[in-house]
Amino acid sequence: MRAEVISIGTEILLGEITDTNAAFIAGHLPHYGIDLLWVSQVGDNPGRMREVVERAWERSDLTFVTGGLGPTEDDITRETIAGVLGEQLTVDAEQEAILRERMERGGRRMPERNIKQAMVIPSARPLANPRGTAPGWWVERDGKIIVMMPGPPAEMTRMWEHEVSPELEKRADSILVSRTLKTTGLGESTVDEMLSPLLSSTNPSIGIYHRQDGVHARIAAKAPTFEEAHFLIEPVEAEARKILGVYVWGVDDESLAASVGQMLRGQNLTLGLMESATAGLIASNMTDVDGSSDYFRGSLVTYATDVKHLNGVPAEVTTIHGVISRETAEAMASAARERLKADIGLGITGIAGGEEVEGQPPGTMHIALTDGNEVRYAYSRYYQGRDAAKKRAVLSALTLLRDFLMERAGAELDGAK
Amino acid sequence: MRAEVISIGTEILLGEITDTNAAFIAGHLPHYGIDLLWVSQVGDNPGRMREVVERAWERSDLTFVTGGLGPTEDDITRETIAGVLGEQLTVDAEQEAILRERMERGGRRMPERNIKQAMVIPSARPLANPRGTAPGWWVERDGKIIVMMPGPPAEMTRMWEHEVSPELEKRADSILVSRTLKTTGLGESTVDEMLSPLLSSTNPSIGIYHRQDGVHARIAAKAPTFEEAHFLIEPVEAEARKILGVYVWGVDDESLAASVGQMLRGQNLTLGLMESATAGLIASNMTDVDGSSDYFRGSLVTYATDVKHLNGVPAEVTTIHGVISRETAEAMASAARERLKADIGLGITGIAGGEEVEGQPPGTMHIALTDGNEVRYAYSRYYQGRDAAKKRAVLSALTLLRDFLMERAGAELDGAK
Repeated sequence: MRAEVISIGTEILLGEITDTNAAFIAGHLPHYGIDLLWVSQVGDNPGRMREVVERAWERSDLTFVTGGLGPTEDDITRETIAGVLGEQLTVDAEQEAILRERMERGGRRMPERNIKQAMVIPSARPLANPRGTAPGWWVERDGKIIVMMPGPPAEMTRMWEHEVSPELEKRADSILVSRTLKTTGLGESTVDEMLSPLLSSTNPSIGIYHRQDGVHARIAAKAPTFEEAHFLIEPVEAEARKILGVYVWGVDDESLAASVGQMLRGQNLTLGLMESATAGLIASNMTDVDGSSDYFRGSLVTYATDVKHLNGVPAEVTTIHGVISRETAEAMASAARERLKADIGLGITGIAGGEEVEGQPPGTMHIALTDGNEVRYAYSRYYQGRDAAKKRAVLSALTLLRDFLMERAGAELDGAK
Repeated sequence: MRAEVISIGTEILLGEITDTNAAFIAGHLPHYGIDLLWVSQVGDNPGRMREVVERAWERSDLTFVTGGLGPTEDDITRETIAGVLGEQLTVDAEQEAILRERMERGGRRMPERNIKQAMVIPSARPLANPRGTAPGWWVERDGKIIVMMPGPPAEMTRMWEHEVSPELEKRADSILVSRTLKTTGLGESTVDEMLSPLLSSTNPSIGIYHRQDGVHARIAAKAPTFEEAHFLIEPVEAEARKILGVYVWGVDDESLAASVGQMLRGQNLTLGLMESATAGLIASNMTDVDGSSDYFRGSLVTYATDVKHLNGVPAEVTTIHGVISRETAEAMASAARERLKADIGLGITGIAGGEEVEGQPPGTMHIALTDGNEVRYAYSRYYQGRDAAKKRAVLSALTLLRDFLMERAGAELDGAK
């Protein structure tokens, strides 16, 4: 199946919004064995929009169109699809009722022009949109499909999961399932070499990718059903895990924060942070994981130097060694552990901005952790702007923590023998 | 000038990376009076890539191509452009020297296949890329232009600013300058009504947009030079500011955190936070602003309830009123102020996750601030997933703070009269 994605909106062409819908759809199509060949963005211009939709209708089996479903005159996606297919728009009574009911529930009278959101063409079946007013369309004719969805990502993804995905699953004659093993501490070529006995396999196939959070090994299998694909992946995954051992820190969409969280929970440990350069970003990441309150105590964001002192970092440490130093990071870890009554304290101090501080370059990070007995330390340096520097620092800190928890689990196993 | 953007990379079509380059370029073209008409993404497939580049060469005056400049066989952007233009690729001696020098400085011998990164065609002039190994191309022939840039955003944006932007400026026969006034506290239709005396103007034109951080009024002027465009905008901006008054909190790319930071600095005040639901995200946003250490003290991320108590929130407050309550938010604000020795303390407690807590729905946020004399409070509720809920909570908190600082500045002015 040849698929195409079209995102509609002049705001995209003006750079006011980034089109994340196309990436979302692109990321979900491989499961159904659907090859995405073209993606394009076009503005609210009738001629160009029609040209793009027409070309898609000619060359693609399956076209996803998002955006342009609002109630204003600029929103011409429905009209354009109807035009390309040569079909008539009419008001769908059921959709009209839903629309009026929803507007009235919100205490508003529906402006008459909004009625266009309830319109369909004969080949279209409406798709429910409980997060907005504009229903989508599932258009099917001449063996081809157009799926029309609203532009706001929250509405689109909800419609995808509840309306579109089940239809795609029914129609797929082959399903692609992939499983990504995420590693840390190994280079791309090392992972490649380690997994070389498996690399000749074609179904499942294995690909090695260098990513910001480490090297990923992706095992992908094609089969008629999800079950059969999983069945193909299983032995190869087991083999790859045996080879890569403790270097694997997570799978698929799992974040490093989630993986670390799971280890903390498993080892019945709590974590407390003291953050300076990352200024709360590690805490924000840790708590993006459901159930993190089981093991995450909190973070002392001690941005000003004297706030570090107020929170238990001895003034002589910052005076003698400097604020951006290993010693300060270690004192922060220790203070975080004590002040937050956590089992493990982690401290991070560094430079997220673009200027040198205390003779150290932008992106410098000193990271330390302690469980009250031993102290671990990591130094990292990465600067491609503040945002990237902070994100990389979060990964470095969580990697230090992960390695520590990994070893600790190993030691516990040894002790239990 | 009709412009087109083409982003190249199978990883985009697989949804593994989101194409932010297209949005970046799109956002910068309006300055030069360049209309972006088409954006598309295509994989590393020779046939389809050629088709897309060919169409662009035919229909567009100016085409921006990003990605596919790596040293591997998959990277065929150079070959494709050369093919469409019917020109020969040859090694540019200067680029080769730069390439070898850079690899050797990194302690590596250059693999011979990497030489392709130093190749050009007769119509192309190389564009420097100090952040990576692949130079870009400025291709000019038959009155048309193709600008080829590397895919990694840090390399692309650097090349844009230093190499591409000056060339576009030289060629632009009309420059579009816009100025966005960001408001808060007013609805879209209210802003529309207030600015109605100005809305009939066509150059500059005014557009009103509803955005997540409030309603924006964008004044845009077209003129032969940047100076003349600014000259057209000035009186209209002054008039709009007079009408909108204190509702304007910032301009253009300014973030609410930057705007609040400026007010804190101006009033010589410091800020300390206690965050629960946002878990450090307000702190992270505040410190994304250069120089924030002048006024930002820190944040106590008190995720666990007893960590709130450890940091000065009286246990009876959370017991009697619940953790997710106005009273707890107020106690947090007060504790943050004292513990962090800040002039203003701000506390936030709520529900970022998808489950009800203490009978309150997902997205509930209680926000309070105090300067030691008076206490301000705001309630907000917004839930479209955890990430969106947290971001909205940050905006709500900063809006409360901004309104307070605004009034305080007004009161000071009154007092000085």
